[in-house]
Amino acid sequence: MHTIRVGLIGAGRMGRVFAQTLAYTVAEVDLVAVADANAQTSAEVAAHFHVPHHYGDYRELLKREDIDAVVVVTPTATHAEVIAAAAAAGKHIFSEKPLAQTLSECDAAIEAVERSGVKLQLGFMRRFDAGYRMAKQKIEEGLIGTPVMFHAASRDPKRTSLEFARRENSGGLIMDMGVHDFDLARWLMGSEVVRTYSEGGCLVYPELNEVGDIDNALINLKFANGALGAIDLSRNAVYGYDIRTEVLGSEGSLLIGTLQQTPTLMLTRAGVTHDTVPYFMERFGEAYTNEIRDFVTCLIEDRPPSVDAYDARKATAIGVAATLSLDEGRPVSLDEVQ
Amino acid sequence: MHTIRVGLIGAGRMGRVFAQTLAYTVAEVDLVAVADANAQTSAEVAAHFHVPHHYGDYRELLKREDIDAVVVVTPTATHAEVIAAAAAAGKHIFSEKPLAQTLSECDAAIEAVERSGVKLQLGFMRRFDAGYRMAKQKIEEGLIGTPVMFHAASRDPKRTSLEFARRENSGGLIMDMGVHDFDLARWLMGSEVVRTYSEGGCLVYPELNEVGDIDNALINLKFANGALGAIDLSRNAVYGYDIRTEVLGSEGSLLIGTLQQTPTLMLTRAGVTHDTVPYFMERFGEAYTNEIRDFVTCLIEDRPPSVDAYDARKATAIGVAATLSLDEGRPVSLDEVQ
Amino acid sequence: MHTIRVGLIGAGRMGRVFAQTLAYTVAEVDLVAVADANAQTSAEVAAHFHVPHHYGDYRELLKREDIDAVVVVTPTATHAEVIAAAAAAGKHIFSEKPLAQTLSECDAAIEAVERSGVKLQLGFMRRFDAGYRMAKQKIEEGLIGTPVMFHAASRDPKRTSLEFARRENSGGLIMDMGVHDFDLARWLMGSEVVRTYSEGGCLVYPELNEVGDIDNALINLKFANGALGAIDLSRNAVYGYDIRTEVLGSEGSLLIGTLQQTPTLMLTRAGVTHDTVPYFMERFGEAYTNEIRDFVTCLIEDRPPSVDAYDARKATAIGVAATLSLDEGRPVSLDEVQ
Amino acid sequence: MHTIRVGLIGAGRMGRVFAQTLAYTVAEVDLVAVADANAQTSAEVAAHFHVPHHYGDYRELLKREDIDAVVVVTPTATHAEVIAAAAAAGKHIFSEKPLAQTLSECDAAIEAVERSGVKLQLGFMRRFDAGYRMAKQKIEEGLIGTPVMFHAASRDPKRTSLEFARRENSGGLIMDMGVHDFDLARWLMGSEVVRTYSEGGCLVYPELNEVGDIDNALINLKFANGALGAIDLSRNAVYGYDIRTEVLGSEGSLLIGTLQQTPTLMLTRAGVTHDTVPYFMERFGEAYTNEIRDFVTCLIEDRPPSVDAYDARKATAIGVAATLSLDEGRPVSLDEVQ
Repeated sequence: MHTIRVGLIGAGRMGRVFAQTLAYTVAEVDLVAVADANAQTSAEVAAHFHVPHHYGDYRELLKREDIDAVVVVTPTATHAEVIAAAAAAGKHIFSEKPLAQTLSECDAAIEAVERSGVKLQLGFMRRFDAGYRMAKQKIEEGLIGTPVMFHAASRDPKRTSLEFARRENSGGLIMDMGVHDFDLARWLMGSEVVRTYSEGGCLVYPELNEVGDIDNALINLKFANGALGAIDLSRNAVYGYDIRTEVLGSEGSLLIGTLQQTPTLMLTRAGVTHDTVPYFMERFGEAYTNEIRDFVTCLIEDRPPSVDAYDARKATAIGVAATLSLDEGRPVSLDEVQ
Repeated sequence: MHTIRVGLIGAGRMGRVFAQTLAYTVAEVDLVAVADANAQTSAEVAAHFHVPHHYGDYRELLKREDIDAVVVVTPTATHAEVIAAAAAAGKHIFSEKPLAQTLSECDAAIEAVERSGVKLQLGFMRRFDAGYRMAKQKIEEGLIGTPVMFHAASRDPKRTSLEFARRENSGGLIMDMGVHDFDLARWLMGSEVVRTYSEGGCLVYPELNEVGDIDNALINLKFANGALGAIDLSRNAVYGYDIRTEVLGSEGSLLIGTLQQTPTLMLTRAGVTHDTVPYFMERFGEAYTNEIRDFVTCLIEDRPPSVDAYDARKATAIGVAATLSLDEGRPVSLDEVQ
Repeated sequence: MHTIRVGLIGAGRMGRVFAQTLAYTVAEVDLVAVADANAQTSAEVAAHFHVPHHYGDYRELLKREDIDAVVVVTPTATHAEVIAAAAAAGKHIFSEKPLAQTLSECDAAIEAVERSGVKLQLGFMRRFDAGYRMAKQKIEEGLIGTPVMFHAASRDPKRTSLEFARRENSGGLIMDMGVHDFDLARWLMGSEVVRTYSEGGCLVYPELNEVGDIDNALINLKFANGALGAIDLSRNAVYGYDIRTEVLGSEGSLLIGTLQQTPTLMLTRAGVTHDTVPYFMERFGEAYTNEIRDFVTCLIEDRPPSVDAYDARKATAIGVAATLSLDEGRPVSLDEVQ
Repeated sequence: MHTIRVGLIGAGRMGRVFAQTLAYTVAEVDLVAVADANAQTSAEVAAHFHVPHHYGDYRELLKREDIDAVVVVTPTATHAEVIAAAAAAGKHIFSEKPLAQTLSECDAAIEAVERSGVKLQLGFMRRFDAGYRMAKQKIEEGLIGTPVMFHAASRDPKRTSLEFARRENSGGLIMDMGVHDFDLARWLMGSEVVRTYSEGGCLVYPELNEVGDIDNALINLKFANGALGAIDLSRNAVYGYDIRTEVLGSEGSLLIGTLQQTPTLMLTRAGVTHDTVPYFMERFGEAYTNEIRDFVTCLIEDRPPSVDAYDARKATAIGVAATLSLDEGRPVSLDEVQ
């Protein structure tokens, strides 16, 4: 079997998760080098995972001729720039979502990738979760007939840092949290979103107001085929990480989600109790491994990526429209922002 | 214990359910007379439940001096008129929801009731369901902190008749199905709705289009205190009757609903399977009894009704605004319709 | 429709439940008289439910010619005697379980019933619960192939009074609580029990030791067709009333039971919590109504009772064998006790 | 961090699972060599996982001085012999369960281990499953008071090969499947088993009869502190792999188990359906990794193994007694077999 030689760009919290995956879990991969703007961080991660080379500047990493592909886990605001540079260096690219927070940045990244002919896959890891995969398969098998409503709840157990919450960093609540649901919506419903309407507010953490973010939002979607969608986002699911999705069709419905981590029920005078899912790695850890495995397989088999730049641009476009709707208090057509 | 002497007005499908409740289940009640526009129907129901008197014209029933109160289960379009007549006759009134489909009709009914000083209670039976009652109580105890999001799915297993679907009969999908959720939203969130936005469509039963109705809708709510709400309505929950509600607060969440009727799980090569709730009587049968019991108790104890005419008017107002939003494709403020 | 005129014998806690059912819920029944060894109790219950006649001695009630049938809810130790007297008086009989705690008493009652030709139905109400009925039906339809294992947990939320716990009153834990499961075992497995082995102990309430009872027991069953059974009984399910049954077959399994009363989930920092079933009326209230309705229908249609005296004798026989096994610490064949 | 150099003995189906774990998942381990009686198998596994050395005779592997520890995944009948040889070679040992199928073999292995002073840990992986760990912790925290009943269902989705079913190979159903539950019973109840009674039969696969095995069994346990236990074993859970355990205490109960693999519910006209757990790797995959990690940590920190040879001998002793009970149709005291 051919081995894919990979460089990791970005070695923060999620970067380490990908380092672990690349170093130990996916057999067909050699993790050759790691880069991080913080040179000490890249040195530490390299040492911990026995990676031969490390850099403080990702452009140095891109100069290595023995690297086939890069995995990009840098801050969102830098995705487009790193992707363009990697494409120019002829490296295949796996990038954490989103592609970018503006459509012009998306377009610049897409152009660079197309010019160089490399493959670009985006990290919409929910598509690689066993639950969502089963849902997609059942829809394609016709189990629920024609999908007519999409529902999603994406809720974090706590708020982000105030610094991250600024729109220039996270893109705001709708862009930051919603992008996974925007991608799922298109994928599971099999139709493009044409209109969006948002309501939101700063209801639990007043300090978010000062940095221009909100903590709860509701987003309505209208699809090209007439179907409907509703997404709720929240930073105050203090009971645990709560990701639930439903697709209602003409012949049935699919519910994806789990409110229980450990298969243990406690029966006491307080009733029946079970634990919840603490955070995203507990819920989607396996999906993160699966998506890298899929990307590597796509390189080995020289087939198109499963989630490509156009998918990523569409998700960003929905986020842009939904955010505009929130800002202006009116329905926003996708045509308006593309 | 004082016995309340009751007349039943309306002896159709739901009228018979109330006849059963009044005749057998609530001990403090004597069902004295029944009226239905179809005189044969009222005769049959009277015979079946051993009711001494029956009428083809409800105005005859209202003339009886031995009747303390009436239960109104006539078609929605006649509620306001019957209520006004009953009030004029000095009878206390329990009426099936909604009070009326227009706010001017609501106001006329309210005026008649206030003038005569009788009590009027509306049949928002979900408030008397054990699940919703527990939720309300837990919210009041502070279990979930401040409520910030309201979610509801109300889904019927099949479409209504085309005749009923006409807006002049049912009020349209949003008014017909949504009114229970509009009432729950105000009650559970403890705040009034100030804005609504609706999306909807005729996605499964094209024939509804011809009578001006839709089969699926999504309704966004904004509450006076800034909280958010999302309601989905559907006529194509072919898997069963599906009523689920969630209230997310700053300190937790409450999920009310059940997808299982019988406590039996089937484990076969096809996976784990259980049945679903067939329709509303299986889900809310006990709540229908409870609401009548509550109304009777309010008469005996001479206390204000649990769900009064103002509650009913508010629910109708939200329905009017949400329907207008659907018709005009824009957010509609409640101020606009009141 | 023909009306069945019924006398109620025994007006204690469960007697009142049956009075309510007979007075209000089953339309084809007239509750004509009530008898209780405590004359004041029978007077009170008669007044409360508007029953025309009441007696301190059930033999007076049996003398009434206008009574078609009696419902026997007296203490277990008197069942056989009351049944024999009612049979001699030519009254059809519905009796709370068990028929008797000894096989000779069972036989005496059976003989009296057979001599007079009246119908006798026993109150194994679980057979009339929707969950168990579905299970029975699915087994008969072949959903799980051939049943090979029977499992049951029957657990009370608290111990009985010490007085009731004495073996001469309750028959002991195995006889008192197990008799429902012994009946279910035969009914659902479709085979007779041939051997039993019991373990038990006084593990939570040491005071039970002093009156000769235990608080936990495990009973193994062997069926004539080779199938296996295991029943656990406990008085310390402090979290709620817990009745769960499983039938494992060659092609699948059926789980009957519910650990949740109200369809409300609470999601807080403490995890996901729901309530439990408080006690037997909350779990089996509807089954108590159903069994009376079934008995009345069997009289109206003049068909054999659904659960007859032979069923009741078999359940008692298993209880006798299982109790003997506990006492002597060895497997006991049913042949030994019959 | 110190690295533990490990040799793998046995490279069949489960051997490959351990090879994967040792090669990729546990960072502190170097997999140095693999041995299998089938030399070609060991060569293949070595090639696949990049293991430097491979042998057809495990005694060659044991001669390597650069190996600290061995992982034994050979057929059960050879466990005791391989363990004795590894101990004599001064290697620490992790062995798949059971230690042996007879107590004399257990004792020989224990003696060899004690003589050489190496550490021996047994592969009771359920102790390392998150669900069982939570249960153990909650019991120790007193959540359910004093444990009084232990329940376990261990059910395979299909029968084993007839060759494996022979008692000289598998030890018979009770020994083969029950040993995990016997270990859990002691661990969770915190008391030793003193008596056992078994019922069993060949109810679904008559062909097992011919090789002297059964396909369903029920085993009663009595603990030293008076507590009770019931275990059911089955080879015909055709709906999936089904491992459920319950510990009922004086103050509550703990249910451990899961009947669902993927967090997706399907709502169709057939009811609500979800998938089941296919087989043991899907249920306990992570526990297999955890147990190796725990063993390696115990070597690094030089602390006693978490599950030692005495635990393993106790589980075997219960299996011997339970099998004897089945053979002789009587309760068997543990004293009898030790």
